[in-house]
Amino acid sequence: MTKFLLDYVRQNQGTWRVQPQVRAGGQFQDCIILVFGKPRTAVFAHIDSIGFTVRYGRELIRIGGPRAQTGYHLVGQDSQGEIDCTLIVDEETGELSYEFTRPIDRGTELTFRCDFRETDTTVQSCYLDNRLGVWNALQLAETLENGIIAFSCWEEHGGGSVAYLAKYIYEEYGVHQALISDITWVTEGVEAGAGVAISLRDSLIPRRSYVERICRIARAANIPHQLEVEGSGGSDAKELQHGAQPWDWCFIGAPEDHVHSPDELVDKRDIAGMLALYQVLMVEL
Amino acid sequence: MTKFLLDYVRQNQGTWRVQPQVRAGGQFQDCIILVFGKPRTAVFAHIDSIGFTVRYGRELIRIGGPRAQTGYHLVGQDSQGEIDCTLIVDEETGELSYEFTRPIDRGTELTFRCDFRETDTTVQSCYLDNRLGVWNALQLAETLENGIIAFSCWEEHGGGSVAYLAKYIYEEYGVHQALISDITWVTEGVEAGAGVAISLRDSLIPRRSYVERICRIARAANIPHQLEVEGSGGSDAKELQHGAQPWDWCFIGAPEDHVHSPDELVDKRDIAGMLALYQVLMVEL
Amino acid sequence: MTKFLLDYVRQNQGTWRVQPQVRAGGQFQDCIILVFGKPRTAVFAHIDSIGFTVRYGRELIRIGGPRAQTGYHLVGQDSQGEIDCTLIVDEETGELSYEFTRPIDRGTELTFRCDFRETDTTVQSCYLDNRLGVWNALQLAETLENGIIAFSCWEEHGGGSVAYLAKYIYEEYGVHQALISDITWVTEGVEAGAGVAISLRDSLIPRRSYVERICRIARAANIPHQLEVEGSGGSDAKELQHGAQPWDWCFIGAPEDHVHSPDELVDKRDIAGMLALYQVLMVEL
Repeated sequence: MTKFLLDYVRQNQGTWRVQPQVRAGGQFQDCIILVFGKPRTAVFAHIDSIGFTVRYGRELIRIGGPRAQTGYHLVGQDSQGEIDCTLIVDEETGELSYEFTRPIDRGTELTFRCDFRETDTTVQSCYLDNRLGVWNALQLAETLENGIIAFSCWEEHGGGSVAYLAKYIYEEYGVHQALISDITWVTEGVEAGAGVAISLRDSLIPRRSYVERICRIARAANIPHQLEVEGSGGSDAKELQHGAQPWDWCFIGAPEDHVHSPDELVDKRDIAGMLALYQVLMVEL
Repeated sequence: MTKFLLDYVRQNQGTWRVQPQVRAGGQFQDCIILVFGKPRTAVFAHIDSIGFTVRYGRELIRIGGPRAQTGYHLVGQDSQGEIDCTLIVDEETGELSYEFTRPIDRGTELTFRCDFRETDTTVQSCYLDNRLGVWNALQLAETLENGIIAFSCWEEHGGGSVAYLAKYIYEEYGVHQALISDITWVTEGVEAGAGVAISLRDSLIPRRSYVERICRIARAANIPHQLEVEGSGGSDAKELQHGAQPWDWCFIGAPEDHVHSPDELVDKRDIAGMLALYQVLMVEL
Repeated sequence: MTKFLLDYVRQNQGTWRVQPQVRAGGQFQDCIILVFGKPRTAVFAHIDSIGFTVRYGRELIRIGGPRAQTGYHLVGQDSQGEIDCTLIVDEETGELSYEFTRPIDRGTELTFRCDFRETDTTVQSCYLDNRLGVWNALQLAETLENGIIAFSCWEEHGGGSVAYLAKYIYEEYGVHQALISDITWVTEGVEAGAGVAISLRDSLIPRRSYVERICRIARAANIPHQLEVEGSGGSDAKELQHGAQPWDWCFIGAPEDHVHSPDELVDKRDIAGMLALYQVLMVEL
């Protein structure tokens, strides 16, 4: 993903309104920071994915919180070559294993096999969480004049990159406003097609005054949106909240159905609304 | 609370022995730092409260860990005005909801309605945790010559401000000794009226040498106190322990009964002892 | 332990290939950092232990995750002198208490009584986790030319020192490669005597490229080793992963049986392999 993104930026930034400074490699590990103009707000989009690690024998353990169902196709690569195997869930114990023509190397990482489906109104695939958040950031980059886009790692499995990205961005640019470009859940209060979700809380609670500014801007711009209120869940914002810099943050993203499965489904209207809202916010915040 | 405290400091500091420097706003978000003389020790008192957030329909979810009982009165405010509603706990599922004359805006925050009761020997109200810790800090301010008082946010719901307050205080003033001015629980080992509690541990364990110094000072000053030993619970000290500065910390506070309910009850002798101990410690540590 | 280590370093460093700079006391609390030559990699070995705290009456609560079994001998010291008592586990409730000739002071810390057993092929004792990790670091010190050895605290109980050690080491020396010198578990995939374990993951997942470099070096050096893949557990690496510096880290340690009991058992071949691998890695990384 890091290489793909660096290539994409190199090939496309010529057509962007502003050419960003690119920070990557070395102290940034597998992360990338794009700095446009005089930034006031930073967008965080995580580039990692959920999946599985091969343990001992045919055992699998989770990376992050993927849904598991017997028959899911998993792909990867080990010392003996390409892998395309099948996930097995033990009905009694819930334990995970794989079926394949040969044993797979210990420690190999497996991900869902991609089956991308598109209709007039929806996209469906594994990893829309968070490829759509990344897509949103890249679309935003085309017209962005002032702002930061940070591509972060390991969000799905405990985090660990946003802490240093946040420190760097705060100390180098004085930026302390963040938007989390990520995908959320369709629930009884958040419907597909009813607009991008602005999260008022998940397991953490963002600072009220900041979220209210965002809601006012969304209303004034007439962008369809839904207010989300959850008691659990988290995002890259956890590291912003707990770090030693005083960040204001807000999670804003399209909702998806079939979360963390190979069949994640998002309504195109919500994707369009997500991008429109980010475009306005990066100007107005 | 932030505005109340800033007003209170402005109006009262003229009568204090030393006028503190006041750090607030901007990078301090909703927190306040008062710096008196040449500080060696910092007192942390959190100014946030537990409560509830309105989710979808009539659903409520918790902010922090409030006790929930059908009939509790909750107050708040939304776009349609003042709210004074009743908490309902589903007996089977434990799910929380409200009863009110109208629907309440999604995301609205509700708190216990205050019913302050005072006798010759006790005070009783919601939010003695941590209004009493704040009161203790403000009383301490009247005679404090050298020290820092930090009013922190979000302690009840995952924290997020002490990390940057601790970094700022350590880097600007070299202070690395902390006292947590907060309220603890009456238990089988800690009685109401038997003195302020000095915590030897909760879910975290403070550095032994620092806590032993504090106990020696308390004994030498003849201040009634109780040693608390718990296996769970936490405080602002979590962020001091886990931050990237080498803080010594100790939780010292009066114990309360009916924890996290509208009926929190504290013995006045323990409050007086709490203040007396902080006054001695800020001189001797 | 801190005093023991400082004495040991003072008495033995004359025979070491390189005399390290010693950082201890003050801002390092009970931790110690040894800096050899021009460091590129830091070894972290935690010096704390699991155990029990005396609560109220005869109650005990855990420090970290010690195994508990009626009859274990526990030792400590309080205001009345030395303690050698017996652990009692309530068979129904699982509650812990002690049996002794007198009451023990509230807040007293108790540890397993040491019964060190050695054969031609094994060592057995409480606290091989992490006295062996410390031993490994001290042996490594004898021939180390360039590198850092950091003795950390509180790993068994939530951490709190590696955050500031990591910040100091990164900022002062630019070092961002870490090895965690600690002891792991014998499991169905990791056998005693089959080599030092290189952990591909526990509850956290280290950066793939760094761990693969380590595996290549181990293979090239013909050092017997086993690849460990776990879904739970943690180490000092948690603080490296979550801190605001971009550390690469890997847990490398001999496996033990009877984890967190007075009878921790390790195969001498795995200890020798652990040291050999650290010696190679500190040159090649």
